[in-house]
Amino acid sequence: MEFSRPPLVVAFGLSEKRKAIVADALAGASDVVCLTELDEAARAEALRNAGVLLTFNTSKELRSGEAALLASARLIQFMIGGVDFIPLGELPKGVPVATNGGGYAESMAEHALAMALAAAKRLILEHGNLKLGQFNQFTHNRMLAGGVNRHGRTNERVDWIGTPERLNELLEAADVLVISAPLTRATRGLIGAAELHRMKDDAILVNVARGEIVQERPLYDQLVRNPRFTACIDAWWIEPVRHGEFRIDQPFLDLPNVIASPHNSAQGTGAHNISLRRAVENCRRALTGEAPLHVIGLDERLM
Amino acid sequence: MEFSRPPLVVAFGLSEKRKAIVADALAGASDVVCLTELDEAARAEALRNAGVLLTFNTSKELRSGEAALLASARLIQFMIGGVDFIPLGELPKGVPVATNGGGYAESMAEHALAMALAAAKRLILEHGNLKLGQFNQFTHNRMLAGGVNRHGRTNERVDWIGTPERLNELLEAADVLVISAPLTRATRGLIGAAELHRMKDDAILVNVARGEIVQERPLYDQLVRNPRFTACIDAWWIEPVRHGEFRIDQPFLDLPNVIASPHNSAQGTGAHNISLRRAVENCRRALTGEAPLHVIGLDERLM
Repeated sequence: MEFSRPPLVVAFGLSEKRKAIVADALAGASDVVCLTELDEAARAEALRNAGVLLTFNTSKELRSGEAALLASARLIQFMIGGVDFIPLGELPKGVPVATNGGGYAESMAEHALAMALAAAKRLILEHGNLKLGQFNQFTHNRMLAGGVNRHGRTNERVDWIGTPERLNELLEAADVLVISAPLTRATRGLIGAAELHRMKDDAILVNVARGEIVQERPLYDQLVRNPRFTACIDAWWIEPVRHGEFRIDQPFLDLPNVIASPHNSAQGTGAHNISLRRAVENCRRALTGEAPLHVIGLDERLM
Repeated sequence: MEFSRPPLVVAFGLSEKRKAIVADALAGASDVVCLTELDEAARAEALRNAGVLLTFNTSKELRSGEAALLASARLIQFMIGGVDFIPLGELPKGVPVATNGGGYAESMAEHALAMALAAAKRLILEHGNLKLGQFNQFTHNRMLAGGVNRHGRTNERVDWIGTPERLNELLEAADVLVISAPLTRATRGLIGAAELHRMKDDAILVNVARGEIVQERPLYDQLVRNPRFTACIDAWWIEPVRHGEFRIDQPFLDLPNVIASPHNSAQGTGAHNISLRRAVENCRRALTGEAPLHVIGLDERLM
């Protein structure tokens, strides 16, 4: 195999439809090589020549010793936004590593909105009450309209934007707090008892990111102490993909003010293809000499 | 009591805060008289002189013989959108009757969106599965973005608009069908087996209006036959307010593809005050000689 230009090396299998998406998003910036279609020797050659490696999980898709072959690549591009559970320490230090930040944005945003609205309208609670024959037509529901901006005026079209230094301000003002940050040294345990106590009694916390960003026991205590506070938990502390099992150390699922989903906020129709396109567009940037987005600093690599 | 101008007669009790809303929305068009603060004789005089009567339910708020005193009023304005269960036949035939159409629009729209999103993201189903320890992270979810316009293109900003003659077209195209029509002779039983069969296998039907607009048994059959079809039922066939009890003749609540709420889509924060303002603004139109909105034709009066 010969390469006139450093190719985009894809570490996972691609259907014909998804190959077409890759080619389209790459816009001729390089050729595409699928590792899963090559034998051992050809894999090594492709990796040594790679311009960019596109991967879901290097620790599962690369074989022993293959990561070192990437030393002259321009970028290692992940397909997912949260790479905290991937051993980035095994990758060549000199090669930039990028997440697919925002790759699943629409699907996760709809999921977060669905959970926040289900909490505001108490859908799961009243669905359960109806099963018991209780028809609570006149219990008050929350409105979300007008609640997402800083000043609480409904004709304001600009959402609150702040840096992490202003987190306390955000916590105190938020009716709905959606956590969509990556898990890093800076965000691990970021929301603990002190932060939860700053929040409104009837706030809605939605976590579609990583369980570890919120401290588990303080969140449970907050929910028990404030029946009007709701947690919408999509991202858990111990989950199948990252830990091999689903486990919770506090009985969140017995609480009426918890809405739970199995970390599936990224599974909306078409989301995987949109995400693939975004990841490949970042590969194209690296291959054509542009600065890629979402590059993770060495100090942000957890594993 | 003397009236320089025909007053707005309010048939129900008002808090000071809600009196201020009435005065503000009336904008000086007339004086306000609260029936509940008057003795028998003063009630009769107020009704005889009424410019407009504002009421939730004439059959509960007016005493025997009082409806006839309204013969020279300009309008009988209801506080709610759905007056199908109110005996309008007891009111003077010559006086226009108006609903508060759109009075609860924001609250009901958020509720319908909450239910449709909960269906699309299968929130109740997966919440239940998590309770059983099942973590179905990779089951496909629906997206709602891009699904509400006629052509299915995401850059289209104009929603589908059609007259009832184009109902079949709408049924075939809809990913989410929200029923928010009043119950009239024209809408009773409008959605039956033939209409449901036209809908997509995986469509989401949301009813925040009246149960009777959808035929109960055909809907149940549709749900049993198509596990991917979801019904979000806020409005039921036999309900406490209209019928004195909650009863369903098909076991909808045992189905996994039903999301149920107790007809509480109008109970969002602030919705009652916004609705009051809209009803009084319609009273003001009648009092100042403008044509009131949402007037019900004699042939549309069900009772």
